[in-house]
Amino acid sequence: MAESWATLGVDLHLEPTGSGGLRRGLTDALRDAVRSGRLAPGTRLPSSRSLAADLGIARNTVAEAYADLVAEGWLTARQGSGTRVAPGTRTPSAPARPAGATPATSHRAPTRPLHDLAPGIPDLASFPRTEWLKATRRALATAPFHALGYGDPRGRPELRTALAGYLARARGVRTDPDAILVTAGFSHALTLLGTVLRARGVRTVAVESYGLDVHWALLRGAGMATPALPYDALGTDPVVPQTAGAVLLTPAHQFPMGTALHPDRRAAVVAWARRTGGLVLEDDYDGEFRYDRQPVGALQGLAPDQVVYLGTASKSLAPGLRLGWMVLPPALAAEVARAKGQADSVGVLEQLTLAEFLTSGAYDRHVRSSRLRYRRRRDALATAVTERAPEVEVTGIAAGLHAVLRLPPGTEESVVQAAAWQGLALHGLTYHRHPEAVTEHLDALVVGYGTPPDSAWAGALEALCRVLP
Amino acid sequence: MAESWATLGVDLHLEPTGSGGLRRGLTDALRDAVRSGRLAPGTRLPSSRSLAADLGIARNTVAEAYADLVAEGWLTARQGSGTRVAPGTRTPSAPARPAGATPATSHRAPTRPLHDLAPGIPDLASFPRTEWLKATRRALATAPFHALGYGDPRGRPELRTALAGYLARARGVRTDPDAILVTAGFSHALTLLGTVLRARGVRTVAVESYGLDVHWALLRGAGMATPALPYDALGTDPVVPQTAGAVLLTPAHQFPMGTALHPDRRAAVVAWARRTGGLVLEDDYDGEFRYDRQPVGALQGLAPDQVVYLGTASKSLAPGLRLGWMVLPPALAAEVARAKGQADSVGVLEQLTLAEFLTSGAYDRHVRSSRLRYRRRRDALATAVTERAPEVEVTGIAAGLHAVLRLPPGTEESVVQAAAWQGLALHGLTYHRHPEAVTEHLDALVVGYGTPPDSAWAGALEALCRVLP
Repeated sequence: MAESWATLGVDLHLEPTGSGGLRRGLTDALRDAVRSGRLAPGTRLPSSRSLAADLGIARNTVAEAYADLVAEGWLTARQGSGTRVAPGTRTPSAPARPAGATPATSHRAPTRPLHDLAPGIPDLASFPRTEWLKATRRALATAPFHALGYGDPRGRPELRTALAGYLARARGVRTDPDAILVTAGFSHALTLLGTVLRARGVRTVAVESYGLDVHWALLRGAGMATPALPYDALGTDPVVPQTAGAVLLTPAHQFPMGTALHPDRRAAVVAWARRTGGLVLEDDYDGEFRYDRQPVGALQGLAPDQVVYLGTASKSLAPGLRLGWMVLPPALAAEVARAKGQADSVGVLEQLTLAEFLTSGAYDRHVRSSRLRYRRRRDALATAVTERAPEVEVTGIAAGLHAVLRLPPGTEESVVQAAAWQGLALHGLTYHRHPEAVTEHLDALVVGYGTPPDSAWAGALEALCRVLP
Repeated sequence: MAESWATLGVDLHLEPTGSGGLRRGLTDALRDAVRSGRLAPGTRLPSSRSLAADLGIARNTVAEAYADLVAEGWLTARQGSGTRVAPGTRTPSAPARPAGATPATSHRAPTRPLHDLAPGIPDLASFPRTEWLKATRRALATAPFHALGYGDPRGRPELRTALAGYLARARGVRTDPDAILVTAGFSHALTLLGTVLRARGVRTVAVESYGLDVHWALLRGAGMATPALPYDALGTDPVVPQTAGAVLLTPAHQFPMGTALHPDRRAAVVAWARRTGGLVLEDDYDGEFRYDRQPVGALQGLAPDQVVYLGTASKSLAPGLRLGWMVLPPALAAEVARAKGQADSVGVLEQLTLAEFLTSGAYDRHVRSSRLRYRRRRDALATAVTERAPEVEVTGIAAGLHAVLRLPPGTEESVVQAAAWQGLALHGLTYHRHPEAVTEHLDALVVGYGTPPDSAWAGALEALCRVLP
């Protein structure tokens, strides 16, 4: 017979932030309740089904939170006697848990919410596994044996050559393989650039009023101030502070607003860089995905000596590959290669596989079929929102894997909260707003329509429509 | 008709240091000759065959040096007119090279010498490509789609679980998957540890009198002093300076001396760590390869709370995989995971492939067959040296992929020089000696007998015997 949560007399605070928030919130709340003695040793907890029903969340979330706490030693689970608070758990100083379980557990990766519309991850279920395996086979069959040794810190020449060709053709990047550096993704590249900029005496990198805090944090970790540039209808206004030695931009597709930087602004930022010797860090995270207009070429093509072009396979293929690339101004290439060194190099087999994937045309084919998939989803999203929530305006959808849904003023926080309680992961625009953003305040949602597998897309869209005002 | 090098009237200085030294030395010498005007624009260079014969080095080395300089714009190569000095190359301020080629080229990875007996690289030609592809296929077939997303900074649970089992069985490591962190190799792990130790206030990490300068340099890069511990017949003597918060050791197989740390010394270093709260960083780089004695278990098994165990696939499989692992004291696991974060994570497909490789038994099979191959080579080395150079003593051969050849006093430098001129890469022991080493001076060579492919092994051994006194 299930006890209800309420009968345990414990307050429950669930963190409604981002993906994985529900499970972590529940885990933390339960752990606190045990630690503080509000749940006494031996107490039987409600079944996961019953607690899930009480909280209106997925049963799996409860089951996983229970499993976490069993692993940590706060709870015990035995066939027949259900889940109970472990003996000897009352005081924080003597929990009956294996030494070290807590610190390790605090880094457990977030698990999946019931519906995932958080931006930034492509449809992983459509990762081209068969084609990737084929490319791996070819890479393994043709790699010279010495390629398996310690290699060039810039990456395998096969991949740099393939990237130089692809980026020139698909993104208008002007480069040669010697100025390309293969990285373990965008964050790795940004970390290396932070190190090099710091060594050059730069202490300020201007960023956009909207963006990703994890990127700003990486720059701050390198000792940079990260003031915000103004944002308006033409995109980011590059009125760069005098102190700044570089500026981080998403010119082709502002993240998350979804606009392309206006041509006047592109010219202005290049002029700034030429005038001051500053660097433009061009984050071209999803340059491949354009629907209703001609692709906007990379800013790098205008000024190869002033722009560091940053690309990644995280959106076009999968973040788990940990593959990205930098196209560097020639004068910077050696410095960045030195900063990278051997320590954090990228596996050569993955590099050779991606090179095969690019040169065989498999990359283009995958991008084309993904573009079709995402375009269909975008259309379904726009149609559904227009029908079901006419007060909500769908913007930023000419390109990319996410949309910005403008909400009636004052409603963002409650919508995000409602979504979290439904097990629906998405971001409020506030989440992506710089603390010192120079732009009007907007209530909006950032919805990643690329994320769910095809089988979960309709359900996720329905869950979204349910929480819209 | 080939011109001879001498007719060009150019001094040639070849750097005889380490692998790749000949090619780089030749490239630098030629570039200097062009830059200084000693080789005038339009001058036709000797054919690579002819220059190689003049210098007594491999033709490939010359051809590659020429190709480097053509790529840089210093030389031109045309069918029918041979290799010539490019026009407009006389002054250093106006070389006819593409902008930026030089800095990038200065980071070109060293290429292979004629005979490679430098320690530290296994036989890459015997990398188990078919088995690796099989494991990749299984990994791709079974990975849940969400594994392709951003993951746990510690690495995939499948791999950490497989490693925990393997390390317990094969190396006597006591751990669980939560305390394991997957890295892009040993250097990456050491870099992370440097960061964490520094944040804990450590400013000194004691190291061995013999070792790898690149490792000491990584620690120095993290702001550590790296004083040397004494080394004698029992191995490294852990009389750790009071200032040191950690010590970096190779207990199972001292690198490069090849001895196992004496049991008394093992006990002493653990006692030091327990007494002071210091950390032992255990570099178990080739723990799998034992020939004449029982494997020496990991020091970590004695003191899991005091020892960070560091392993790598670089010796057992290939450095190009960029896969390594750390087994951390539970109290340190969360801190190191935080220091790692997402930025420099390791590709999940490589991780899942290695997990498959371990659990399927393919790893054990590969280690066994490699052990047999290396043991045969070691025996051939010992026999040949004893016969051909009776004054040379072969030591440190109970385990591993390299041997230490003790030379008559005062002969090391000339032997290393002679080897370099023969295109034979190996290291003098001095190369691995700490600048403040506390140990008697020995003249010796460090010979990596694991490195050449089977087809090149006999030739490399012959080249070695030719340069021995």
